[in-house]
Amino acid sequence: MKNRRTPIIGIMGPANTKDTTLLLYAEKLGKQIAENGWILLTGGRKAGVMDSASKGARNAGGVVLGILPGDDHSGMSEHVTIPVLTGMGHARNVINILTSDVVIICGMGNGTASEAALALKQGKSVIFTHVSEVDVQFFSRLIPLPHQVSNDIDEIISMIREHLH
Amino acid sequence: MKNRRTPIIGIMGPANTKDTTLLLYAEKLGKQIAENGWILLTGGRKAGVMDSASKGARNAGGVVLGILPGDDHSGMSEHVTIPVLTGMGHARNVINILTSDVVIICGMGNGTASEAALALKQGKSVIFTHVSEVDVQFFSRLIPLPHQVSNDIDEIISMIREHLH
Amino acid sequence: MKNRRTPIIGIMGPANTKDTTLLLYAEKLGKQIAENGWILLTGGRKAGVMDSASKGARNAGGVVLGILPGDDHSGMSEHVTIPVLTGMGHARNVINILTSDVVIICGMGNGTASEAALALKQGKSVIFTHVSEVDVQFFSRLIPLPHQVSNDIDEIISMIREHLH
Amino acid sequence: MKNRRTPIIGIMGPANTKDTTLLLYAEKLGKQIAENGWILLTGGRKAGVMDSASKGARNAGGVVLGILPGDDHSGMSEHVTIPVLTGMGHARNVINILTSDVVIICGMGNGTASEAALALKQGKSVIFTHVSEVDVQFFSRLIPLPHQVSNDIDEIISMIREHLH
Repeated sequence: MKNRRTPIIGIMGPANTKDTTLLLYAEKLGKQIAENGWILLTGGRKAGVMDSASKGARNAGGVVLGILPGDDHSGMSEHVTIPVLTGMGHARNVINILTSDVVIICGMGNGTASEAALALKQGKSVIFTHVSEVDVQFFSRLIPLPHQVSNDIDEIISMIREHLH
Repeated sequence: MKNRRTPIIGIMGPANTKDTTLLLYAEKLGKQIAENGWILLTGGRKAGVMDSASKGARNAGGVVLGILPGDDHSGMSEHVTIPVLTGMGHARNVINILTSDVVIICGMGNGTASEAALALKQGKSVIFTHVSEVDVQFFSRLIPLPHQVSNDIDEIISMIREHLH
Repeated sequence: MKNRRTPIIGIMGPANTKDTTLLLYAEKLGKQIAENGWILLTGGRKAGVMDSASKGARNAGGVVLGILPGDDHSGMSEHVTIPVLTGMGHARNVINILTSDVVIICGMGNGTASEAALALKQGKSVIFTHVSEVDVQFFSRLIPLPHQVSNDIDEIISMIREHLH
Repeated sequence: MKNRRTPIIGIMGPANTKDTTLLLYAEKLGKQIAENGWILLTGGRKAGVMDSASKGARNAGGVVLGILPGDDHSGMSEHVTIPVLTGMGHARNVINILTSDVVIICGMGNGTASEAALALKQGKSVIFTHVSEVDVQFFSRLIPLPHQVSNDIDEIISMIREHLH
């Protein structure tokens, strides 16, 4: 029964970034997630990694579930196909984590850090990508649970497949 | 742009009911929503009107967005195709209302009453069906806003179409 | 142990009202709650029944716990002594209900209706005051649980005392 | 007006710790906060740093505002004097941060990391104590905002006083 449900893969990353390498990477990751037939979940805003990942998935014909902080569609990424309006600000970060079958932390920021910490606390499968040495050290010290680090998209897709088995 | 997004129609109704007439009606309503190409939103649980509406939509090949109160999939209707886990109990009622482009109140219960009140407060388009005289009096007195009452599915579908224009 | 904690009495009522009779009544109710040594809980805003009840309790030297919808102190009643900032909009209504040992529904509005419905669903002790015949009929039909109706402040205080025993 | 409100100082730290040095330290910090006439805010549970800080403040006659994750009083620290029941699990971490005038991060854990990240994102005054080199590096890299690190209670109290001016 559970197998018949389409998996939901969350990509969390900084909203305030001009790192075009990171943004292009997020877009490719979103594309791959859609091409594998999975639903992409993001924070839904027209900003940074959220927006780029959504663009990649949408352009590949995928479903993009955007969990928005506000109570209307203002500031929404145009690539979100299913917007969920929470009206709860940062409290929606918890929904992002709970709803994702696998969480990908793509780059680091304050909101992203809160989501990574919650995901580890919740015992979720977490894959870190495009993060620094200090980030990895910080989160590894927090939780000895198996989480994974990779900057290779093919490898990340394989990791997701394993988690979904 | 907004027109390109698939509309989301919420059906809210009692979880604890054995009224088979109401449940069959909710199933037909869910079916019609799916056949019109809209996404059905429910509270996601395997109970009462939520479950029946989800069944109708799913069996017609539709997308069923279930906004669940818990932090895992236990108690979920098997007809939900996209489960959103909130871990927030009744606070998720607010998300149900905010996310729905049109809200259908189908029967009445405590949770349903809280959702109807929030929907009216939020200025949402609300259609009441299978409610009592007292229910209509109560909500009409609260808000003079145009809300609609009908027990005819074809008429309800027409009302939804008008709201989505 | 539970007896040593100061009871928390919630007063919920319309924010948008110019009914001075209702507002003066709410102020007296707040005063009585403070004089009985109980904590008053409200939705915290400088509006309607919330503000008047807070004023009554504060002026009698009481503690006023205000559960605010926003993420800062703007719009807060100046009579709140302990503001809790939720940043969650109407979802904070759930916190109002859960946190109150006894819930007083004082007048009726959309937000108030959602809180009354949630309180009954949650099995809380609910006292209705200054509500209409239709309001009573509506909520009585929803839940056969013992809830009480009174417009006499002394009687309401007695009801609260019984609930706290 | 704002000056007349009693400041609320939040202490966030790991729930699952047996580090008695940290726990005794949290208790002293709670005591100092109460002795300065401030309200102590914690996550409200009978566990780890929350419980110890609450104990220190309560025994010094202080007010302890506990923002609980559950919808009843089970698992509550007996030292909480005003319990706020959210029924929202980890989403209540956002309330902890928003409600605190100054946030003290006392030790590190997953929940604590999510709170520290949210506090920095929210632009709150944050004081770190009993954290590691890696923790400081991680959060310093995230936000260049002035946050402070100290393991000396007198110094921390002075820092709080400055923030409250």
